[in-house]
Amino acid sequence: MIDTAQHMDIDILITGGTLLTMSESMDIIENPVIGIRDGKILFVEKEGAFQHRANEIIDAPGSVIMPGLVNTHTHLPMVCFRGLADDLPLMDWLNNHIFPVELKYVNREMVYDGSMLAIAEMILSGTTTFCDGYFYESSVTRAAVDAGMRAVLCMGFSDFFTPDIYDQSNNIRIAERFIEKWTGVSPLITPALFCHAPYTCSPETLCAIKEISENAGVFYQIHLAETKDEVKIIQEKYNRTPVRHLHHLGVLDDKTVAVHCNWVDEEEIRILADCGTKVSHNPESSMKLAAGVAPIPRMMDAGITVGLGTDGCASNNDLDLLREMDTAAKIHKVISMDPTVMDAKTVSRMATLDGAKVLGLEDRIGSIEAGKRADIIILDMNKPHLTPLYNVYSHIVYTASGSDVSTVIIDGKIVMRDRILLNMDIQDIMKRVRKIADEIKLQ
Amino acid sequence: MIDTAQHMDIDILITGGTLLTMSESMDIIENPVIGIRDGKILFVEKEGAFQHRANEIIDAPGSVIMPGLVNTHTHLPMVCFRGLADDLPLMDWLNNHIFPVELKYVNREMVYDGSMLAIAEMILSGTTTFCDGYFYESSVTRAAVDAGMRAVLCMGFSDFFTPDIYDQSNNIRIAERFIEKWTGVSPLITPALFCHAPYTCSPETLCAIKEISENAGVFYQIHLAETKDEVKIIQEKYNRTPVRHLHHLGVLDDKTVAVHCNWVDEEEIRILADCGTKVSHNPESSMKLAAGVAPIPRMMDAGITVGLGTDGCASNNDLDLLREMDTAAKIHKVISMDPTVMDAKTVSRMATLDGAKVLGLEDRIGSIEAGKRADIIILDMNKPHLTPLYNVYSHIVYTASGSDVSTVIIDGKIVMRDRILLNMDIQDIMKRVRKIADEIKLQ
Repeated sequence: MIDTAQHMDIDILITGGTLLTMSESMDIIENPVIGIRDGKILFVEKEGAFQHRANEIIDAPGSVIMPGLVNTHTHLPMVCFRGLADDLPLMDWLNNHIFPVELKYVNREMVYDGSMLAIAEMILSGTTTFCDGYFYESSVTRAAVDAGMRAVLCMGFSDFFTPDIYDQSNNIRIAERFIEKWTGVSPLITPALFCHAPYTCSPETLCAIKEISENAGVFYQIHLAETKDEVKIIQEKYNRTPVRHLHHLGVLDDKTVAVHCNWVDEEEIRILADCGTKVSHNPESSMKLAAGVAPIPRMMDAGITVGLGTDGCASNNDLDLLREMDTAAKIHKVISMDPTVMDAKTVSRMATLDGAKVLGLEDRIGSIEAGKRADIIILDMNKPHLTPLYNVYSHIVYTASGSDVSTVIIDGKIVMRDRILLNMDIQDIMKRVRKIADEIKLQ
Repeated sequence: MIDTAQHMDIDILITGGTLLTMSESMDIIENPVIGIRDGKILFVEKEGAFQHRANEIIDAPGSVIMPGLVNTHTHLPMVCFRGLADDLPLMDWLNNHIFPVELKYVNREMVYDGSMLAIAEMILSGTTTFCDGYFYESSVTRAAVDAGMRAVLCMGFSDFFTPDIYDQSNNIRIAERFIEKWTGVSPLITPALFCHAPYTCSPETLCAIKEISENAGVFYQIHLAETKDEVKIIQEKYNRTPVRHLHHLGVLDDKTVAVHCNWVDEEEIRILADCGTKVSHNPESSMKLAAGVAPIPRMMDAGITVGLGTDGCASNNDLDLLREMDTAAKIHKVISMDPTVMDAKTVSRMATLDGAKVLGLEDRIGSIEAGKRADIIILDMNKPHLTPLYNVYSHIVYTASGSDVSTVIIDGKIVMRDRILLNMDIQDIMKRVRKIADEIKLQ
């Protein structure tokens, strides 16, 4: 039972609608009453149990209330390259388009401006937590702090000259500094490290960065087994496939997030499962680049925790996780020729609680339960394409898209209401990113 | 040159923005001036050539103007079953869920109400022409007429008892009457006939309906080679695969629209090409049902005209053709492991001019050129997820979704402006469909 006295100080009260708690037991509560105080979910009740008073009441009849979505892999500033180079062979795209513009145009300001635009797009489409890996990651972090967005920020490393690290022998010092700098700065911010890939990082780099991660107790992210070519390159160079290579080096553990994993065999799935390694699944990017389709249903059968990601906007080209859910469900059905795999409930979990687990944040977010931080989204279901309604999970996965999200709360603060972003001047942000794009167009 | 005098009577003038004409030469015009009179596109000019007067001026700076999208295959009234039964084995889904509710709940009123909701959803997502096949097709037709929507309406036939034809020996008479009834009634309406599939229609039915189509000069639509099971059944029964079976019966010609064609070999592709048969590609439905992926790039290489369709909402679960374009591009890239196939320009054509060709309407619609009927949509590009803008086709295919469409014109009439449907009471339509769903839920 709830002590009614404590309800006096409620910051936000959400009432009405259908609540997908996304808790372990996947409870659905009709006409819930959700109380939020000091950024935390204070209680989740059924209608009518108590009368509450609150500073702000959000009445949401006919809406769906669910945890904010968790995007487990993206590169925010790449929104600046959205649609710059599509429909190209992978190596042409990377070597002749993306890498050159990155070297020339990526700087502190571009990363900040691009990140702000990306955060705006994510909030507008219901994402409340992202895991990013890019250059000038401190600028991404600043954008997240300024926008009031929850994030895992991964400073990126490779053995190559990058826009922000000219001398790769400084990698270790830079990694340590990044972690120190951002640890404890904000409850919304979790620093982490990111080795680009087995083919761009030597075993020494992979292990050194992993060691810093371990010492600091932070997560370690890496693109892994994304393309057939990568498998070939690593096999030729190290006489092992990418997953076996990393396992051999000892960098796979339960604080490692392996991104993509499109080309893994049954034994590699067992290795990932045994190590407790988490997988970030980015189906749209891997489809668009013709990189492959990860055997996600088999990974989940093996007990691997899988979250969803959009990847960066140069290869997707949006950050709408609701659309990614739809694609994730459909691609695995047709690839496995089994319409029962990746059902709507499973995919909804991947984008919420399982995503939180991938990032080690499941104690704080991923479900709507008393005690968790208040990362909550509300979807307006009173729309033609969401009518009629038989099964809420089906609508969330197969029909809803980002534009159906009406209200977004992060850590107990309303950051979007009735599709208006409350913390940012979106016209100004778009103007700044267009200016960056105008320069790129002139090249 | 244009005679300025005739501009006195312009109904609608569209100015500014970027025009994707989708003409054969795929011209893009910046800051165009488009004049519309009596439902027709009177002229398409570059800015500044003339001063025009018009009853209505739509100023669209920063927007994309393009032809209304053409949905070449759907079953409108199935919106009433949206999300009713997902993630099930195909035969379980069809035999234990869809067919039983169809037999029990499909009637004239349900078809009309469902069609109105579906038309609303289509207009809201930029579709201005659809090709439908269902029971009580006259009720679908009435909805299209009432909504001011362009459509090809295909009365559906099979050898089985259906909600609207109790005695299948009446098929021929009913088909003839349907064509007679709707020919010439409205310039927006084109009647046609629809045999459900080779496994539900005997050779006699297939040929009899085709003969009526030929005599009346109307199109003939059929689900073809959708699943592996269908191929097996037809092979066993007729000793030919589905495409060869229809070819043998003589029903494949340039007024036949073959829907799906997921399981066709190289020779069958050549048969379809040689016959001039059009193909309607519905990737999302075939993915969700795990039916298969049609070899569309190979079909297009063979010269087959391919349009896009959403299929019905029991298997998609929406009618958003912009999202279908995205999926169509991505699925073929990953299936063929070639990121250059189904580029954004090609897919944009599939959803417009090629879709019009599939339905035999290319003289009237599918591109924005003087002389064609004015079916035009305007997309608001001033949004975070559509920023910055390097390549309009990329944004249309990979990023935009239905909710980015701001204004829709069909046959020179504005049916949606600033996302407000002008011809229908959408709250009332949703209410009526919810009532139908409430009854189904009680079963």
